[in-house]
Amino acid sequence: MSKNAENQDIEKRTDYEVILKEFGIAKTDNIVSRVGKDHLFFRRGVVFAHRDFDKILDRVEQNKGFAIISGRGPSNDLHFGHLILFELIRYLQTKYNCNYYMPLSDDEKYVFRKVDSLENTARPALENAIDIFALGFQPENVHAYISSVTPRIQYLALTFSINQTYNAIKAALGLNGDENAGTVFYTCIQAAHILQPTVDDGFPVVVPIGLDQDVYMRLTRDIARKRKIPLPASLYIKYMKGLTGGPMSSSAPETCVFLRDDAKTVKKKIMSAFTGGRATIQEQRELGANPYICTVFDWFEKYFIQDDKDLEETRQGCLGGRLICGLDCKPRLLKMVLKYQEEYLIRRKEVMKNLPEYFEHEIDMTILDSESD
Amino acid sequence: MSKNAENQDIEKRTDYEVILKEFGIAKTDNIVSRVGKDHLFFRRGVVFAHRDFDKILDRVEQNKGFAIISGRGPSNDLHFGHLILFELIRYLQTKYNCNYYMPLSDDEKYVFRKVDSLENTARPALENAIDIFALGFQPENVHAYISSVTPRIQYLALTFSINQTYNAIKAALGLNGDENAGTVFYTCIQAAHILQPTVDDGFPVVVPIGLDQDVYMRLTRDIARKRKIPLPASLYIKYMKGLTGGPMSSSAPETCVFLRDDAKTVKKKIMSAFTGGRATIQEQRELGANPYICTVFDWFEKYFIQDDKDLEETRQGCLGGRLICGLDCKPRLLKMVLKYQEEYLIRRKEVMKNLPEYFEHEIDMTILDSESD
Repeated sequence: MSKNAENQDIEKRTDYEVILKEFGIAKTDNIVSRVGKDHLFFRRGVVFAHRDFDKILDRVEQNKGFAIISGRGPSNDLHFGHLILFELIRYLQTKYNCNYYMPLSDDEKYVFRKVDSLENTARPALENAIDIFALGFQPENVHAYISSVTPRIQYLALTFSINQTYNAIKAALGLNGDENAGTVFYTCIQAAHILQPTVDDGFPVVVPIGLDQDVYMRLTRDIARKRKIPLPASLYIKYMKGLTGGPMSSSAPETCVFLRDDAKTVKKKIMSAFTGGRATIQEQRELGANPYICTVFDWFEKYFIQDDKDLEETRQGCLGGRLICGLDCKPRLLKMVLKYQEEYLIRRKEVMKNLPEYFEHEIDMTILDSESD
Repeated sequence: MSKNAENQDIEKRTDYEVILKEFGIAKTDNIVSRVGKDHLFFRRGVVFAHRDFDKILDRVEQNKGFAIISGRGPSNDLHFGHLILFELIRYLQTKYNCNYYMPLSDDEKYVFRKVDSLENTARPALENAIDIFALGFQPENVHAYISSVTPRIQYLALTFSINQTYNAIKAALGLNGDENAGTVFYTCIQAAHILQPTVDDGFPVVVPIGLDQDVYMRLTRDIARKRKIPLPASLYIKYMKGLTGGPMSSSAPETCVFLRDDAKTVKKKIMSAFTGGRATIQEQRELGANPYICTVFDWFEKYFIQDDKDLEETRQGCLGGRLICGLDCKPRLLKMVLKYQEEYLIRRKEVMKNLPEYFEHEIDMTILDSESD
């Protein structure tokens, strides 16, 4: 999903509680007790808000199914910032034994002019799919597809296109009219991605997203409401901080670690990460450091240190000056990241063998032999 | 193709020559001599203008192919007013041995809210196809398809969607923004219909249309220009007059004769047609009548009387008071129409047997057994 005027405004706002109320999004109090606290994402507020996920949990309690849908606009390799989203999906899928629909939205990248041609997006789409599956999904309950070559999606998009006026899309996305026709229609394609499991397979869906993408949920919910389709639920996740202290972004490689960055690059990036440390070791030993602004601690808290006691000791070690960024925390994170990469590359090879099983349609494996663009 | 602000303005305008110049459309002088005058449409100016058809004829002279594309938004049965378009296509196809692509644009009818659902349009689409084929096409060179279920068209529409801004579409079609997203995107679908023979099969195309539909040609030519695809040519045809004197329209049944109207209805409609006749037979014998405002004579001239000498005698007979509307011309036209219908119904039965051969994709013949909506 692409950034736009309204979204960027939301990102700049710090009055999250007001935003949540404004758009009918609830805090997670009423779902954490039902999901349980076995996963740190729910214990530590990485999943910090939801809309209608309580209704999904009602269904779970009635032994009725639901589905997860989360698209991916094929682009650069995945980075560790993406782990939160996919780890959440993996967790929910395993816990609730539900289907995961994975549209690879080459059409999105194309209409927003991030790629030259639809054809050239097939390879990154497959590469991304491999990356995602290698995070630990089992093929049985995954439905992956490349959006532009999935006629059912294009048909549903056309079907839904009567339920959204240009003016509504314009207002939601802050368009000025100079955008191409594809960007207008993409709202309908995205609605097709989100609602297809409901329309075709009878499963209400939940979409895990960042709050900045909520505008697309609202547009899709408008369509679902008009068509009397169960409205999609959503779970809102916090992103990991970028290594330089600002937001993480694929297009700024120094802010993130790619899953396939080599060890030397990983080391360089992590050892240069922005932390809450003091100017000198001596000063830090004396005064302690600040974990609350530290990107390394953020990565620990949101993903890498799963044990709460361990995390708390790390926090206290930082605050109390016992842990030094460059001597303790950065090397520890580096080791964790490299270990993850090692296991991940093994899983990736396994996935390559079985890739066609994951897909809804035939895929051309020879694409993967060709040169990357 | 649908009517809209700019189109309706064009229809109201009588300064055809100015319009033609404004939009780069040429009169037929430079093509009639090359096509020949064997068909009345070219002899009598029923084909009254063209854009780039001379380039198509250049190709013909170089033994290179071209294709004809003419869509049909499935609706009521065809009426005799549609004959001109399809007879022109049949003539050109036979003369130049070229392919005829026939998109049945259920999507158009759907996004412009002429039908409730895409699914309900499958039957009228097939019915229309049967009607058209029964006009005398041979299956070998016809490529008919229902647009919404033809993935290649939806894919091409998406491809073309980056080449047209909303503002350009808005200006061309006179939109105000309250139109649904499908109507905006339909421009791209239509471009896909028109350009697909060129993109996929290497044939430059000609589109026979009414001048009121030229705005769609211009939008598609913009796309072709940006993609460096040979621009589609067009032939502009005059419509037959409606029986009540104004324009002919399927939605005003008294203005037209449907191909499958029963004999009683046909008789009633034709015998009530608006003519240039006088108040009484005696007066007409004395003063003559006016063929130039007469719908019956218009039908003779544009389609039913193919022999020029016969037509001229009829004109003089009218002007000189020898022919009386209700005694001579109306019964003559009625007889011609009924004879056409009789032969047409026989051909229709033949077409029914071979319908699947005409289509690019599998069709569900059982639809034809179900109740019409």
